[in-house]
Amino acid sequence: MRRNKPKYKQIIEAAVVVIAENGYHQAQISKIARQAGVADGTIYLYFKNKEDVLISVFQEKMAMFVEKINEVIAGKKTAAEKLLVMIEEHFKILSTDTKLAIVTQLELRQSNKDLRFKINEVLKEYLSVLETILDYGKERGEFSADLDVRLARQMIFGTMDETATTWVLNEHKYDLVTLAPKVHELILNGFKS
Amino acid sequence: MRRNKPKYKQIIEAAVVVIAENGYHQAQISKIARQAGVADGTIYLYFKNKEDVLISVFQEKMAMFVEKINEVIAGKKTAAEKLLVMIEEHFKILSTDTKLAIVTQLELRQSNKDLRFKINEVLKEYLSVLETILDYGKERGEFSADLDVRLARQMIFGTMDETATTWVLNEHKYDLVTLAPKVHELILNGFKS
Ligand SMILES: CCCCCCCCCCCCCCCCCC(=O)SCCNC(=O)CCNC(=O)[C@H](O)C(C)(C)COP(=O)(O)OP(=O)(O)OC[C@H]1O[C@@H](n2cnc3c(N)ncnc32)[C@H](O)[C@@H]1OP(=O)(O)O
Ligand SMILES: CCCCCCCCCCCCCCCCCC(=O)SCCNC(=O)CCNC(=O)[C@H](O)C(C)(C)COP(=O)(O)OP(=O)(O)OC[C@H]1O[C@@H](n2cnc3c(N)ncnc32)[C@H](O)[C@@H]1OP(=O)(O)O
Repeated sequence: MRRNKPKYKQIIEAAVVVIAENGYHQAQISKIARQAGVADGTIYLYFKNKEDVLISVFQEKMAMFVEKINEVIAGKKTAAEKLLVMIEEHFKILSTDTKLAIVTQLELRQSNKDLRFKINEVLKEYLSVLETILDYGKERGEFSADLDVRLARQMIFGTMDETATTWVLNEHKYDLVTLAPKVHELILNGFKS
Repeated sequence: MRRNKPKYKQIIEAAVVVIAENGYHQAQISKIARQAGVADGTIYLYFKNKEDVLISVFQEKMAMFVEKINEVIAGKKTAAEKLLVMIEEHFKILSTDTKLAIVTQLELRQSNKDLRFKINEVLKEYLSVLETILDYGKERGEFSADLDVRLARQMIFGTMDETATTWVLNEHKYDLVTLAPKVHELILNGFKS
């Protein structure tokens, strides 16, 4: 598999930096090669084209993230606790790598249909972790039995995503991770006094 | 003002159709002119360039939408009722014009910094209506006194926005407007059983 080859990871990391700094449309393969310290031709040994680089970056990082999330979630007993650590991990990964945050919050939002479809197929893996937590919470009676899991999933992801985008566009002026318990509390208990 | 000139509205409406059908990057001024039934030169009498067309479309439609929202909100007494009609209007405007929905949910998500800044300045007007409702709910004691209005605003907008994008990408297979009371209920009361 290409992902086990030595230069694969190196190119992935370089691509995050180049896409964040230049924007996807200005992130030429030659720039990515220079950042990775490899020849242009080397990139084409691993990737079909620039689109393939973007999708692969997202796939690679998402696979690692989902693995990590599943680990921390397994360590928690209640659905409420699982949800909290998931929100924390979501905010942590973006906080510790602001270049990655620019890629997820701005550059992965491409309107090209084909590209969008491939990006959303990767996103699905993460959303299904979220659905599992919600189903578990309903089974345990922590969440209301008539909770619409699809809508609830869209609500949680939408909230985390908007919070993260606003933080990126405010140039990381405040701490994102400290917002996790507040977001969690609002989702579980709502706005009512 | 240019917005009172006869062909202005005609061009705005044509731009929504052309941008939705072709994507922003493939929406040349000449295509917009053809759709509007005017000469290319006429567009330049009203707009500096394509970017100006996109921003103006958003400004124009948003101004009308905010006016409408303020009207329906004024007719409701409680913050909870105001919030419900706001969510309904958000979903209604997208449902009744799926081309506009493609523009708001996909084509307005541009990663170009300058363009993004201008788009988000327009978005601010809408978010401030939302903040007013949240402040009002806190004053009346309907919402908890320590509700973080900024975060709550990000949660509501993020939820509506994600619900709308998922609906667009699922090609409007289900009814968006019937989701409004469900979204409202989840926001006010949370997930807990
Ligand atoms: C054809 C068009 C038809 C339209 C018709 C109408 C249809 C309506 C329905 C559809 C709407 C769809 C809209 C489409 C929008 C496209 C754009 C997107 O991608 S949207 C999806 C993606 N979303 C986006 O792109 C939105 C991203 N957000 C933003 O860019 C901005 O929030 C803003 C411009 C929206 C508001 O700006 P502003 O008014 O300045 O308010 P802020 O709160 O941001 O900041 C105020 C201060 O508070 C600080 N602070 C904030 N939060 C926190 C916190 N939690 N803790 C601590 N601090 C916090 C912050 O640092 C700042 O500090 P300082 O600088 O004063 O010291
Ligand atoms: C450098 C990268 C580093 C990454 C590291 C990891 C960091 C993690 C943290 C950051 C994550 C950020 C991710 C960035 C994502 C970029 C993409 C975006 O723009 S995201 C922001 C914008 N958001 C997006 O772009 C997401 C848009 N959503 C989607 O495209 C899809 O929902 C999906 C592909 C995500 C899941 O697809 P699927 O699994 O198929 O699940 P569905 O539920 O959609 O559909 C199943 C069925 O249910 C029907 N149905 C659904 N809802 C309702 C309802 N309420 N009522 C009635 N019916 C409903 C529906 O019609 C369908 O029916 P049928 O066809 O079976 O008959």
